[in-house]
Amino acid sequence: MLNLLKIQKQIDYFLEEDIGMFDVTSTVMIDPDAHGAFNLNARQSLVVSGIDVARLVFERYVPDITIDIRAKDGDRVEKGACLMSVSGNAQNILTAERNALNLLQHMSGIATETARYVKAIEGTGCQLLDTRKTTPGLRMLQKHAVVCGGGRNHRLSLDNGLMIKDNHIVVCGSITAAVKKAKALVPALIMVEVECDRLDQVREAFDAGADLIMLDNMGLKMLREAVKIVDGGVPLEASGGISLETIRPIAETGVDYASVGRITQSSPAVDIGLDGAK
Amino acid sequence: MLNLLKIQKQIDYFLEEDIGMFDVTSTVMIDPDAHGAFNLNARQSLVVSGIDVARLVFERYVPDITIDIRAKDGDRVEKGACLMSVSGNAQNILTAERNALNLLQHMSGIATETARYVKAIEGTGCQLLDTRKTTPGLRMLQKHAVVCGGGRNHRLSLDNGLMIKDNHIVVCGSITAAVKKAKALVPALIMVEVECDRLDQVREAFDAGADLIMLDNMGLKMLREAVKIVDGGVPLEASGGISLETIRPIAETGVDYASVGRITQSSPAVDIGLDGAK
Amino acid sequence: MLNLLKIQKQIDYFLEEDIGMFDVTSTVMIDPDAHGAFNLNARQSLVVSGIDVARLVFERYVPDITIDIRAKDGDRVEKGACLMSVSGNAQNILTAERNALNLLQHMSGIATETARYVKAIEGTGCQLLDTRKTTPGLRMLQKHAVVCGGGRNHRLSLDNGLMIKDNHIVVCGSITAAVKKAKALVPALIMVEVECDRLDQVREAFDAGADLIMLDNMGLKMLREAVKIVDGGVPLEASGGISLETIRPIAETGVDYASVGRITQSSPAVDIGLDGAK
Amino acid sequence: MLNLLKIQKQIDYFLEEDIGMFDVTSTVMIDPDAHGAFNLNARQSLVVSGIDVARLVFERYVPDITIDIRAKDGDRVEKGACLMSVSGNAQNILTAERNALNLLQHMSGIATETARYVKAIEGTGCQLLDTRKTTPGLRMLQKHAVVCGGGRNHRLSLDNGLMIKDNHIVVCGSITAAVKKAKALVPALIMVEVECDRLDQVREAFDAGADLIMLDNMGLKMLREAVKIVDGGVPLEASGGISLETIRPIAETGVDYASVGRITQSSPAVDIGLDGAK
Amino acid sequence: MLNLLKIQKQIDYFLEEDIGMFDVTSTVMIDPDAHGAFNLNARQSLVVSGIDVARLVFERYVPDITIDIRAKDGDRVEKGACLMSVSGNAQNILTAERNALNLLQHMSGIATETARYVKAIEGTGCQLLDTRKTTPGLRMLQKHAVVCGGGRNHRLSLDNGLMIKDNHIVVCGSITAAVKKAKALVPALIMVEVECDRLDQVREAFDAGADLIMLDNMGLKMLREAVKIVDGGVPLEASGGISLETIRPIAETGVDYASVGRITQSSPAVDIGLDGAK
Amino acid sequence: MLNLLKIQKQIDYFLEEDIGMFDVTSTVMIDPDAHGAFNLNARQSLVVSGIDVARLVFERYVPDITIDIRAKDGDRVEKGACLMSVSGNAQNILTAERNALNLLQHMSGIATETARYVKAIEGTGCQLLDTRKTTPGLRMLQKHAVVCGGGRNHRLSLDNGLMIKDNHIVVCGSITAAVKKAKALVPALIMVEVECDRLDQVREAFDAGADLIMLDNMGLKMLREAVKIVDGGVPLEASGGISLETIRPIAETGVDYASVGRITQSSPAVDIGLDGAK
Repeated sequence: MLNLLKIQKQIDYFLEEDIGMFDVTSTVMIDPDAHGAFNLNARQSLVVSGIDVARLVFERYVPDITIDIRAKDGDRVEKGACLMSVSGNAQNILTAERNALNLLQHMSGIATETARYVKAIEGTGCQLLDTRKTTPGLRMLQKHAVVCGGGRNHRLSLDNGLMIKDNHIVVCGSITAAVKKAKALVPALIMVEVECDRLDQVREAFDAGADLIMLDNMGLKMLREAVKIVDGGVPLEASGGISLETIRPIAETGVDYASVGRITQSSPAVDIGLDGAK
Repeated sequence: MLNLLKIQKQIDYFLEEDIGMFDVTSTVMIDPDAHGAFNLNARQSLVVSGIDVARLVFERYVPDITIDIRAKDGDRVEKGACLMSVSGNAQNILTAERNALNLLQHMSGIATETARYVKAIEGTGCQLLDTRKTTPGLRMLQKHAVVCGGGRNHRLSLDNGLMIKDNHIVVCGSITAAVKKAKALVPALIMVEVECDRLDQVREAFDAGADLIMLDNMGLKMLREAVKIVDGGVPLEASGGISLETIRPIAETGVDYASVGRITQSSPAVDIGLDGAK
Repeated sequence: MLNLLKIQKQIDYFLEEDIGMFDVTSTVMIDPDAHGAFNLNARQSLVVSGIDVARLVFERYVPDITIDIRAKDGDRVEKGACLMSVSGNAQNILTAERNALNLLQHMSGIATETARYVKAIEGTGCQLLDTRKTTPGLRMLQKHAVVCGGGRNHRLSLDNGLMIKDNHIVVCGSITAAVKKAKALVPALIMVEVECDRLDQVREAFDAGADLIMLDNMGLKMLREAVKIVDGGVPLEASGGISLETIRPIAETGVDYASVGRITQSSPAVDIGLDGAK
Repeated sequence: MLNLLKIQKQIDYFLEEDIGMFDVTSTVMIDPDAHGAFNLNARQSLVVSGIDVARLVFERYVPDITIDIRAKDGDRVEKGACLMSVSGNAQNILTAERNALNLLQHMSGIATETARYVKAIEGTGCQLLDTRKTTPGLRMLQKHAVVCGGGRNHRLSLDNGLMIKDNHIVVCGSITAAVKKAKALVPALIMVEVECDRLDQVREAFDAGADLIMLDNMGLKMLREAVKIVDGGVPLEASGGISLETIRPIAETGVDYASVGRITQSSPAVDIGLDGAK
Repeated sequence: MLNLLKIQKQIDYFLEEDIGMFDVTSTVMIDPDAHGAFNLNARQSLVVSGIDVARLVFERYVPDITIDIRAKDGDRVEKGACLMSVSGNAQNILTAERNALNLLQHMSGIATETARYVKAIEGTGCQLLDTRKTTPGLRMLQKHAVVCGGGRNHRLSLDNGLMIKDNHIVVCGSITAAVKKAKALVPALIMVEVECDRLDQVREAFDAGADLIMLDNMGLKMLREAVKIVDGGVPLEASGGISLETIRPIAETGVDYASVGRITQSSPAVDIGLDGAK
Repeated sequence: MLNLLKIQKQIDYFLEEDIGMFDVTSTVMIDPDAHGAFNLNARQSLVVSGIDVARLVFERYVPDITIDIRAKDGDRVEKGACLMSVSGNAQNILTAERNALNLLQHMSGIATETARYVKAIEGTGCQLLDTRKTTPGLRMLQKHAVVCGGGRNHRLSLDNGLMIKDNHIVVCGSITAAVKKAKALVPALIMVEVECDRLDQVREAFDAGADLIMLDNMGLKMLREAVKIVDGGVPLEASGGISLETIRPIAETGVDYASVGRITQSSPAVDIGLDGAK
């Protein structure tokens, strides 16, 4: 479950960003005592993410809100499905609406796109990973959306994993030396991953005791040989420009993970709307 | 020019989100006194947005940074172009790198997509508008990216324009009454826009003195008639599900603006990378 | 209605400013379980502003508070009138009291002074506008107080209107060129106002399509001629050193607005006190 | 000297309040590379307060600013005097200008009004005190302005002094008991003041060891007798509805302090303007 | 009573520090609907401090929490005593637990150590004072813990007392001149203390009207003579390297206060644990 | 290297906590233009931690500071050693001094105590780990101090490692099932640790693929058997009430780690002072 206080703080920021000093339209045009009831409806098939976040948006801004949750994070719903019903002070609901929708559309967009990738590798035993290529300020929500879509998180942040790359290897003299140094100093519950683009590097990283090996931009044949080299002894992650078109054969090579930056960076928003409820 | 202090505050938040307590990898693997020089290179043709934001990211986190700006916001650059060169403490640069890239890729992604729409309506006299369908927390940066791509901003936030919609009209009794009320109470420098989905509404809104009229989901024929009705007396904005495929004929009806939510909600990130400089 | 979250955040800041680490007096001298009931009473005739803000002060700091609102923003009340009754933990109420009073006295002071100006121009058709000459940190609350007193808001902030002044005209070459540039680039729902101190400028601004024209420090005769020139085609705002003594004849010239900086900068606080309730 | 970091944080808030996402006018109308030089001039005789605060406003928002300070806090200057010259990026200076002026006008307004009171009691040996009746959010700056005008601070905040009032005395049984309790528990460097409205209370408070005695709304005769009772043994503070008209005779009774709420609550802003420098 | 809003803000920060984006363990391993009931039990004899702070930790993070408070701040409890029972959503309670414990263990550690010092000087009439040697960020909570242990607060912060030291005396020319300057300018409810390390300084400070005199690192004999010199005319504070071993004889010299930095800087945490409740 | 922006933000908070509105003493008693030069000297043998943090304190509050760093984090220095020389505006330095000292004394206290433990297990091959038993608000600085003292970090926060405990095992049915669930869902770079208090649990956890095994409160004999069981196949962590007296024999059993809560919770501050420099 996401950090409650962090979400609330973010929502306060999001609402202030959109409202400014006051919602001119609602203030001028709507009776301050008017009551309204609305449904948030899916206008396309989608995988839900952000229901609790949208709920918190309304709870933060509409003191007398009543909310009926109709779908939960991770659900696949069809076009026309109602995700949530809200009723309460109409002025406040209409002021908060756009924010709740923007969040739901964005997060469900990521979950829906993630689910496409997950479906593409179904049955292969390979898991879909996200990356640190996220939209600044939305890391936590996007990482959660990936999980809602069936993916798995890689690092959450820079204090959350150690990645050995080319230049580190050069500095240390060898992969072996780099892994040794990393394993001796990293916080005890954090893994050390080595980024390799050649098979001899994979072998060395494996022998040196890496906890995870990233196979960077390798072709299918190389991926298959890497799988043979480590033979289940350490998890392997295929990475680099993987798309919905190319992911299946990669997953079929036997790698444990395939990581895809574009699920967090480039997933289009899905269409969800607010309609008056009778 | 964007609000400097607001950008700095956001960047601090973005960096803290990504770094956490410390960058385990750089701390463990890189010599604290090592110096590095890097280029940010476009890996595809794109319209630049966020150069100053990326510059501030490095300036906030790398005290001894030297930056050479090679492209400016709004520039169209080709694959391989260098956008910026940075040199300084290697540990700090590598810690800040991902954030600078994430911002540039996201903002340039919006600018590049916006430019596609702008090109599509070139010569029609119609301007592309954005909407409030933005990614929460990134309103200011996304609105700026739209301008970099050649688009124009609609409302920045809810205290920045008044939009009369169906339910307001119902409450007030008529468009005429709604506009009258709005024009009497809105802050003096803010316009009143009326959302119409029928031509008689357009006529009434025009006669009532609306400052702008939104034509919601109208077909091309209706758009053309709306243009005739107001005959240049008030700006008209076509809105609702407009895509790169449908925007040209809409723009050719003579409307002043076409507004598109997906440029801010769904533009894919463009590919920009960090490479070692010799 | 003011942005709820923004008010709460401000109140938290105000309370921390006044309390510091703890209210030494209440902590030492009052039984932590004591219950108290108090009235906030007007000690002079005044126009109320800030009732909901004062309510929120007590709600934020007194968990068990019961509040009975007796007057609402915009009401004219006489000396001795009770604005609000509060009862709850005595320690907490007495700690929060000064803040609630300071806010009510300041905001009602502005509303009361504004009402004097509004009364002075009653029947002329001219509206009173505020300015950006506000006390830093209190823009939103002061703008609201002006509305409570019967005035109307001009710009809320710098992203909320475009004002063409002398030096812009010099740079662009002419008022016509300046207005053209502004109208082409400003966000679509924001008006362009031109500041004029000569009648030929008024004419040019009008012809160029300004949305609003400010008449800066013009005498009554010039104001009347400006009114004739635009003949209702664009709203006119008289501005510059207007006081309670001079506003009526200015308003009678036919201008649409008279803007007054001192209502937000220099209104004296009104007298409101907290008394024990029986 | 005021807490530097606190001022900077407040200034950042003030600037964000006024700017919003961006200064539409400066962005659209001014060349981003234009350079400008301006003077801040007094348009009336005034006592200066806030020079360093205004300086920090420009330093926070105009990276390339050059500032020439011409007057310092506490100075009396005449109409036409230049307080400060600034030069640098014109866009940034014009964006920050209003804030610097609003702060200087507000703080110098308080200093100027305070100086009137101080002058009124010149030679009496009585000092002018401020109160906690300040504008929320501006306590620190207003307390500083009072000092610039020649006044002296009373409590800064609730953790900064202990005031025994009626209801505390009732609860403790007597002034003696209340003072005893307070003196035993208050932080060791903080004084205990007793609010009295009768002479027998003054005597009891004095005997009980109060560190300061407030004489609440007493007439001149009673004030004189209170002065006789304590005979220099403890400082006395006259308080309650004191105005510029009534303060001199009060000060002449021999009290040590006269406290005035309206200097912070109701001082009008003074007139200071920004003019282009040649 | 501690500033409620300040505590809440601190707790939010503490929780975010410990949780990060989400509690991986509770999220993965515990049923989101599971309910749990737990007791916070003392694992040693201790003086309680922080009960309300721990309660607020659970209230901030566990929306459905039920709390039964079994001990209050200042209580001496024995090993095995239950301080508080909590029940509610198990995931949330286990996420917040460590923070509540860390706070209680730290604050009760200070209260318990303080109580040892207070017991050591029992019956001497001397009071134990704390200092500004606190753990950064925890000033308010530590000062409160000192009071829970029976100690008394010295200055809360730098705006809360004036301390004249060596270099100030040098600059002013004499203690007499320094005290005179300080008493004329300090806020009216704040005391002036003089730090002395010789008896002639004590005499001069007393005659000059200091409100408090600090006897810095004086031996017992000197302390006794200082007591004779002022003869009850001003409170005296012994200071400098005082430990549990040396405090009794110091207190017996007749000084009013003994101040000890290590109670806030170096008190070991006490042992308090969370156990499942049946 | 610690997150720069996070440290700066914390320091700003620490300084505001200590200063309040202004440093009454320095403001009143010290010439605003006075220049001062000071040394921070160790008054005992200690291991340094926090040099860069103390440097930043001075840099944040003393604009014209010159700093000469004489010792670096991790250094063992003897009594009398100068750690840092600072010179600049005397008022500002004296205002910031206490904060810099409080931080250095606290962090170096932890480093010094940690070094005692590290020395106690020298040559055994066992590493000292810290825990999440830290002082709220100081996690990052304390974890850094542990590293300065030669220790190693365990989890930084709850999103930074997964710990399977008793109740998780009960819910999942077995250690095997719990580990399987955890390994399938945890972010890919985070380890799964199992807390065991019996040897059969150690065996099961090892077979199930735990990444780390915690041996909770086991006697020396049991620890030795646990070491035999896993035979180097997975790291083992001894935990529970380990003190300076008991740690050596525990380390000699062959476990990889010994974790100690009291180094962060209960290390006494070391003595460091500020002296005038000639």
